[in-house]
Amino acid sequence: MTDSRRLSGVLSPVVTPFKEDLSPDADRLVKQCQWLLSQNVGLAVFGTNSEANSMSVDEKIELLDALVDAGVDINRMMPGTGCCALTDTVKLTAHAAKLGCAGTLMLPPFYYKGVSDEGIFANFAEVIERVGDESLRIYLYHIPPIAQVGFSVDLIERLVTRYPKTVVGIKDSSGDWDNTFAMLERKWDDFRIFVGSESFLLANMRNGGAGCISATANVNPAAIDKLYQEWQSDNADELQQALDDIRDTVMAYPMIPALKATVAEFSGDQAWRTVRPPLVNLGAEHSATLAAALRENGFEMPGLS
Amino acid sequence: MTDSRRLSGVLSPVVTPFKEDLSPDADRLVKQCQWLLSQNVGLAVFGTNSEANSMSVDEKIELLDALVDAGVDINRMMPGTGCCALTDTVKLTAHAAKLGCAGTLMLPPFYYKGVSDEGIFANFAEVIERVGDESLRIYLYHIPPIAQVGFSVDLIERLVTRYPKTVVGIKDSSGDWDNTFAMLERKWDDFRIFVGSESFLLANMRNGGAGCISATANVNPAAIDKLYQEWQSDNADELQQALDDIRDTVMAYPMIPALKATVAEFSGDQAWRTVRPPLVNLGAEHSATLAAALRENGFEMPGLS
Repeated sequence: MTDSRRLSGVLSPVVTPFKEDLSPDADRLVKQCQWLLSQNVGLAVFGTNSEANSMSVDEKIELLDALVDAGVDINRMMPGTGCCALTDTVKLTAHAAKLGCAGTLMLPPFYYKGVSDEGIFANFAEVIERVGDESLRIYLYHIPPIAQVGFSVDLIERLVTRYPKTVVGIKDSSGDWDNTFAMLERKWDDFRIFVGSESFLLANMRNGGAGCISATANVNPAAIDKLYQEWQSDNADELQQALDDIRDTVMAYPMIPALKATVAEFSGDQAWRTVRPPLVNLGAEHSATLAAALRENGFEMPGLS
Repeated sequence: MTDSRRLSGVLSPVVTPFKEDLSPDADRLVKQCQWLLSQNVGLAVFGTNSEANSMSVDEKIELLDALVDAGVDINRMMPGTGCCALTDTVKLTAHAAKLGCAGTLMLPPFYYKGVSDEGIFANFAEVIERVGDESLRIYLYHIPPIAQVGFSVDLIERLVTRYPKTVVGIKDSSGDWDNTFAMLERKWDDFRIFVGSESFLLANMRNGGAGCISATANVNPAAIDKLYQEWQSDNADELQQALDDIRDTVMAYPMIPALKATVAEFSGDQAWRTVRPPLVNLGAEHSATLAAALRENGFEMPGLS
């Protein structure tokens, strides 16, 4: 089966800029997305790192419309659309599909814990049937450390078997390579397996994976894409090591505030530091220490302004 | 400080009826709320047991309007209004306050895990300031087994100190009596501490608590209220034991589907069995077994139709 719409490569769960009053800042988001595209990194807007679940469905729809209106390439876009409420997920997913987004990244409903595979399957079936759009391409979003609810390999197989044209991939943010490998081994037809951290990018590519969708792609996009492009080269292990060093430097701080502080420091635009509660901005001191540690590593964000 | 709006007693996190197409059934909800009030049990609509997080904010607003339009007593109402997104929480809370609800039961934002007390405080401060309604009375909803994010005793103290007229109580669904007791010991001025299970009702009342908000109050309201009324009587321990027996019988099954199956069996209205994904209806066989076990215990739901 050939499906030209399916995505591969490196995507960034794009951090969402907020104004002083904590409302989403569409202009800054457009600019950031265009910069990421210039680094050859796709746009998983409304991911965990985007503080997507701290925004209402209507706020996300407005941002999505603003991106499309600004001409940001819809073919590189995989917005997160999975919410707790069935009706919210349907509304946001239908909108993304109607706009023509290449795919959507879908969390399972994550309030109720210990739910059955049968219940999650029923949820996805309802969403797919209600959206009723043949252009819909769903990438499952497996992030048990945060969502607590996830996708077993058997559940994925059930979804792929029932909806082979719609359930086309997964982002595995379990942080557990054995889990990623168990999915890769199933070799579902053209199923796109993304790791949720570039730490596993080389391993993923060597085993038939599709790429990665990683927090750090917000700040280190070109280098991550370089490994994606050159994973078969002789120096791939060195490229991987260099990525891990940058990642470790950033991850020494609370992830989302650290990403935003890094964008702020390297763009010179301090407005980027703002997060929505319940997150807390990285303080000025930690921001400076983080930026200094990154610069020591030779890190830069060329073209960011 | 005297505040006649503050609630005490027994409240039910009212199960939400859904139609065949999974849309909320306002008429059945009104009827159920009126029955619960006839049993002297208050209305914590949109709680965990209400599948509240499986509904959009707009669906909850419509249901709330329907209850008020039907004349359901707003002075006995404590709708759940805490969502992941700041803007959703503000919208729903402002609506509940404007309608005149006695209180609102507020989850912390629950997607991001391991967030700081400072971040949760900032979230509640934003909600309170944005709603900007002096009639607002917030009961914190502490349910770490499901939300994973909760309120430390120090955070509660900080909120009560900063907003003494607004943050007026808590529902403790930790299932950990030591945690409830630690809060009771602080003796915050007229702070209403509800336990999240009637198993702790007697202990709570003996230590200055305000009552309970419990799943089982959906099906066993009168008996739970009786213990609340007679906790100082000689047979209080026996009343407690009888409540525990009924609770254990129901909790042998998945909680929410079991509550709905019980309402369905004892009202004769099978439509009550429907749950929204990711939950799964209790099957006919389990429903029958559960109802038989309850009847063996002498259980009934008088006046329910």
